[in-house]
Amino acid sequence: MTTPTTLTATTPGARMAAEIAEQPGRWRQFLAGACAELDAVAARIRAYGPHTVLLVARGTSDHAALYAKYLVEIRLGRPAGLVSPSTMTAYGARPDLRGVLMLAVSQSGGSPDLVRSVEVARSCGALTVAVTNNAASDLARAAEAHVDVLAGPERAVAATKSYTAQLLALHQLLDRVAGGAGEAAAVLPDLGEAVLARGGELAELAGRYRFAQRLVTTGRGYSYPTAREAALKLMETCYLSAQAFSAADLLHGPLAMIDPLVPVLAVVAEGVGGRAMAPVLPRLAERGADVCIVGAASAGATFVLPSGAPEELSPLLEILPFQLLALHVAVDRGGDPDAPRGLNKVTETL
Amino acid sequence: MTTPTTLTATTPGARMAAEIAEQPGRWRQFLAGACAELDAVAARIRAYGPHTVLLVARGTSDHAALYAKYLVEIRLGRPAGLVSPSTMTAYGARPDLRGVLMLAVSQSGGSPDLVRSVEVARSCGALTVAVTNNAASDLARAAEAHVDVLAGPERAVAATKSYTAQLLALHQLLDRVAGGAGEAAAVLPDLGEAVLARGGELAELAGRYRFAQRLVTTGRGYSYPTAREAALKLMETCYLSAQAFSAADLLHGPLAMIDPLVPVLAVVAEGVGGRAMAPVLPRLAERGADVCIVGAASAGATFVLPSGAPEELSPLLEILPFQLLALHVAVDRGGDPDAPRGLNKVTETL
Repeated sequence: MTTPTTLTATTPGARMAAEIAEQPGRWRQFLAGACAELDAVAARIRAYGPHTVLLVARGTSDHAALYAKYLVEIRLGRPAGLVSPSTMTAYGARPDLRGVLMLAVSQSGGSPDLVRSVEVARSCGALTVAVTNNAASDLARAAEAHVDVLAGPERAVAATKSYTAQLLALHQLLDRVAGGAGEAAAVLPDLGEAVLARGGELAELAGRYRFAQRLVTTGRGYSYPTAREAALKLMETCYLSAQAFSAADLLHGPLAMIDPLVPVLAVVAEGVGGRAMAPVLPRLAERGADVCIVGAASAGATFVLPSGAPEELSPLLEILPFQLLALHVAVDRGGDPDAPRGLNKVTETL
Repeated sequence: MTTPTTLTATTPGARMAAEIAEQPGRWRQFLAGACAELDAVAARIRAYGPHTVLLVARGTSDHAALYAKYLVEIRLGRPAGLVSPSTMTAYGARPDLRGVLMLAVSQSGGSPDLVRSVEVARSCGALTVAVTNNAASDLARAAEAHVDVLAGPERAVAATKSYTAQLLALHQLLDRVAGGAGEAAAVLPDLGEAVLARGGELAELAGRYRFAQRLVTTGRGYSYPTAREAALKLMETCYLSAQAFSAADLLHGPLAMIDPLVPVLAVVAEGVGGRAMAPVLPRLAERGADVCIVGAASAGATFVLPSGAPEELSPLLEILPFQLLALHVAVDRGGDPDAPRGLNKVTETL
């Protein structure tokens, strides 16, 4: 076995690799209080006392929004929903949103449909909060309050550091709304560095998927957003047909398409979501699936995540090996994950 | 060219074919007032006056729930969300659901996680309504009110007639909640029969996808649930990696994986959702995609749907060609869509 090719500044994927590596440091800065407005926004939401939380986002940010949905339902005890932006932008719906908190999540803050959704929601009575990586963006201005995720400039088209920065910012915001101070996240930077130090394991694992064309990712609970985001990374950098299913939904039909030529990447973290995967793994085995588990040693994981983070923060660590896997598979295939075919960094949808 | 093989009672897919054919007749029965409880349930919801609507479902029924989400947001002007059942079943969340309507949608009414979600929602203050094909089911009993979709016994594992029966029942219920009487649906049975009479066109089209392994479906607005359900039919009967994207989400990353070997099935109906597809089709062309459009003649559709139904009822017609396409591709491949590998008719998830 030779060692993996070293990535340099002129290597395809160099930007993505550098941005992946930045993540623990960015988390450390955020946790040190770099986001000046965090407490004030949390206090404003607490004072508002929303009966329902709506989330609006696209692409990678939509997976951060899905993570926030679990936090809202489980930690805040409020119903939450992901908005279909077209209802307000294309169909002209003007729902009664008094008492509703709308959280809009976006890296660039530049997609017109999200800006319009926030404008409409605000005019319909919602408290609107934007969570972006650009305080000067249209989205940040359209909302009544803004939380800067402080990921720093992201140049690779495939979002990595902005995703975990969004997860962290949303956790820190919602934990404060729930009356906490977000202390549990203090362990994350060290644990994240420990995961990234094992990049060689992912470079090696990437060889297994060199010729795969179809792939399924799965997880449940807090790990379901990880499965979704892992699939998107593999789609946009490796051009795989990568499909993500909550483990329960997988059994309601899609299981039929699993066979030994459709590899499965399963997230089985410690905690409730991981335990809920137990009925699914034997069903995958019945279908002869090639299953690679990322998560708990007790689940027989191929890539074991370090323990020490509470389940609700595990998604920040879970996604790291998938980011590296996507990077390595893409580069192995001769692609450049910094500039995937057909995509631009800021996607403008109406 | 020879004519397609005639399906007989002993032919693979015979049940699915028969159930597809039943649909317009089932709609006619429902519209004639067969669901005795419809007006009373609608009146109860109107009296309750929910500030938010939550929907809970799995598999095909989840696509009917997604359709209802659009109706709720656009027609009722209330925020709506699809529940992640695990938050209440596995994580033990007990959200404050006073003033919330929970609609649970299921063919069998038998999945324990849906039953439990409704029990928890009811105990947390929600008004709970089950929409099922089995009035004697656990789910029907767990909810405070029940709407029977009256699809008749469904035996093929791949749901077809129960899906359109759910769409119709949800439309008729929510239209009544909005103060209407559901009259617009009267045109559907005749239009559905007109679509099904053209089954030969789909049998012929199926040959194009005989060897496809990957496929993308897309639609926007009311047609997005159609894209989702079409992908699920193709997954569970043809074992294709079929991925559905709202046309806007497709541009946020997944577009990169489209190439001439990944066929695209696009739903472009007359109306707002279809017009919102306009920016997407040129982007697919840039990627060299093989695009088959189901919908409006003005969109250059390969399979033109009859006009005459309002956009919000178009999904009942749109899904019919996809059901037939999935049936024919599955049978052409030597499969039996009545009994896909790895699946049972009633899926029990916890």
